[in-house]
Amino acid sequence: MRKPLITLLTDFGTADHYVASMKGVMAGLCPEAQFVDISHEVAPFAITEAAWTLAQAAPCFPQGTVHVVVVDPGVGSERRPIIGRSGGQLFVAPDNGVLTEVLGGEPNANVFHITADRWFRQPLSRTFHGRDVFAPVAGRLATGTGAAEFGPRIEDWVRLPSLRPVPNPDGSCDGVVIKADRFGNIITSLPAGLPGPWVLEIAGQVIAGTAESYAAAPPEELFSIAGSAGTIEISMCKASAFNRLAVKSGVLVRLRRHA
Amino acid sequence: MRKPLITLLTDFGTADHYVASMKGVMAGLCPEAQFVDISHEVAPFAITEAAWTLAQAAPCFPQGTVHVVVVDPGVGSERRPIIGRSGGQLFVAPDNGVLTEVLGGEPNANVFHITADRWFRQPLSRTFHGRDVFAPVAGRLATGTGAAEFGPRIEDWVRLPSLRPVPNPDGSCDGVVIKADRFGNIITSLPAGLPGPWVLEIAGQVIAGTAESYAAAPPEELFSIAGSAGTIEISMCKASAFNRLAVKSGVLVRLRRHA
Amino acid sequence: MRKPLITLLTDFGTADHYVASMKGVMAGLCPEAQFVDISHEVAPFAITEAAWTLAQAAPCFPQGTVHVVVVDPGVGSERRPIIGRSGGQLFVAPDNGVLTEVLGGEPNANVFHITADRWFRQPLSRTFHGRDVFAPVAGRLATGTGAAEFGPRIEDWVRLPSLRPVPNPDGSCDGVVIKADRFGNIITSLPAGLPGPWVLEIAGQVIAGTAESYAAAPPEELFSIAGSAGTIEISMCKASAFNRLAVKSGVLVRLRRHA
Repeated sequence: MRKPLITLLTDFGTADHYVASMKGVMAGLCPEAQFVDISHEVAPFAITEAAWTLAQAAPCFPQGTVHVVVVDPGVGSERRPIIGRSGGQLFVAPDNGVLTEVLGGEPNANVFHITADRWFRQPLSRTFHGRDVFAPVAGRLATGTGAAEFGPRIEDWVRLPSLRPVPNPDGSCDGVVIKADRFGNIITSLPAGLPGPWVLEIAGQVIAGTAESYAAAPPEELFSIAGSAGTIEISMCKASAFNRLAVKSGVLVRLRRHA
Repeated sequence: MRKPLITLLTDFGTADHYVASMKGVMAGLCPEAQFVDISHEVAPFAITEAAWTLAQAAPCFPQGTVHVVVVDPGVGSERRPIIGRSGGQLFVAPDNGVLTEVLGGEPNANVFHITADRWFRQPLSRTFHGRDVFAPVAGRLATGTGAAEFGPRIEDWVRLPSLRPVPNPDGSCDGVVIKADRFGNIITSLPAGLPGPWVLEIAGQVIAGTAESYAAAPPEELFSIAGSAGTIEISMCKASAFNRLAVKSGVLVRLRRHA
Repeated sequence: MRKPLITLLTDFGTADHYVASMKGVMAGLCPEAQFVDISHEVAPFAITEAAWTLAQAAPCFPQGTVHVVVVDPGVGSERRPIIGRSGGQLFVAPDNGVLTEVLGGEPNANVFHITADRWFRQPLSRTFHGRDVFAPVAGRLATGTGAAEFGPRIEDWVRLPSLRPVPNPDGSCDGVVIKADRFGNIITSLPAGLPGPWVLEIAGQVIAGTAESYAAAPPEELFSIAGSAGTIEISMCKASAFNRLAVKSGVLVRLRRHA
């Protein structure tokens, strides 16, 4: 068997012991597992951002990878813990929509409600299900235990509103800002590769320039570029488009065909 | 043999090469070792915070784990390097009290003064014993070398003042703020689960509300909750109690029974 | 064969999914690989800082280690991707000078231009060669594929100006500030261990004090110390020399012999 690979995506930050506690629990159950951090700096409780980030990273990982996602404002409430299975990968998460992007478009995805609390760490805390619920389940999945052994299959798992672009009657198309990355590139939900010419409208500004690469762009100017996620990014050459535009996640971006 | 597991807990941050240099040294000595970071964002020189963080994470790890702790304001001075052994785990650290919480209550804990400098990296720097002393010792421990081979057993290793709560003549009980986590939860040293009713006094405020889970709490209000460390935390629902109270580590928290 | 070890050094930060995407690609190609992060917090596009950081960490790692460096302001332009080989280690990077410090002084270093695009991830993005070029090449190097299989050997790879100190006619010697670390130690390019007595001049101040260890220094005073990189650092005891002096990378530091 290939070495088990477990990724972690949380809003825990890296200053506290929370992530390490989860890894310790999983290493105890599956000593062969290798851990890869996707991010622990998801904005606290930002489920949409986490859903998008997971969907970017997961396709890069091999079949058999177990992804544990803990962005969980409802910890301790009645929200369900779930396991998603799609494309040969497994996803362990709270049922709050965080698997929408990674499972939503997959007709063959299966989702299971984790009910078998004999797998949980005891005593079960009310505040840290990452350590007490999600880590033990992920550790056992990594050893080869099947997802169906943790509970029944469900259909009514939570989906977030789609990030797909919305066409307008006038021929323009609306998307949103997903996030800004460390370089200040503003990542949007609008698909790259549409035939032009077109312009972008965002926060009262019109962005007409496009570039083939960051390095090819003129300095000091906002431009759009086909980003690595397959969507349009708004960028500046060696500078931060985010600092210039100061737009938040969810802000409207309109793509308008150019007469 | 199970795969060796080495954790790291430092105040080095993650921007510099220091942590990687330690892992490179350890990987050279023990190629099979897997590394898990507990945290590298302990406040610089904050020994009490590191001691508490280590005590939270270590019990989640399996037997045989080697924990390396480098929060070391005394590097280059006469402070001793030590190895602690307890509960089937090993702890490599400077002798400055950072093992107090993890070893202090363990009657069967053994501590060894590392004197065998033939194991150290040469030339030995005066400023980076993480790389030159602690990493080579931890790497060899991970290969199975016994702790007693590094030096004599000692009894007089440094203990910090206890974090245990102090009862007052009037029936109230005093603890301290340990730290705030990324979510702004204020973690205290007061044990959770005491029979009520009681209130908390901190920074001139009285906190009467309690909640079973973060999600169950009313918005905009400070409340107390049983935290995942087994102690009382002061929290707000989807907001930062730390931003509200602005208390530092060490600040007094008093638990007063309610008439 | 010893377990493959792959390090990563980027300016990607740790909040985004970029680093994980690279690790996913590499784990798919080389399931046995263990990953060690050197840093992902290199200042964006700071090639000199990355070159220096790599040269600090690499010698701590065992032979056979593959280092992937992605600080790449020219991504998508005509800058070449290269593989460097030196001292039994391999370095995968853009050809922008980032390997200067680690290969520059090595007469037996070989450098190869990566031209075999059949190894690249398809479709090849214009903005994320970390995932699409450098990760697949590093993953295959870790499985044992030889560097020469990726393209021809080249001699004209990019070198940055040397960080070696420059002697002046009056007997003084000029270096630069390389960076400040998390503790506020200012790391310079001036070699430690020169026979004294001498003083340092930086930012209009003269620093005469030296110390054998951080702990041995008087409080509140700037002093110089032999740093773990083998060069002179400017430090304060339990305080930040950087906060005091506020000097940037590249600022002149002059060492003047004392009459």
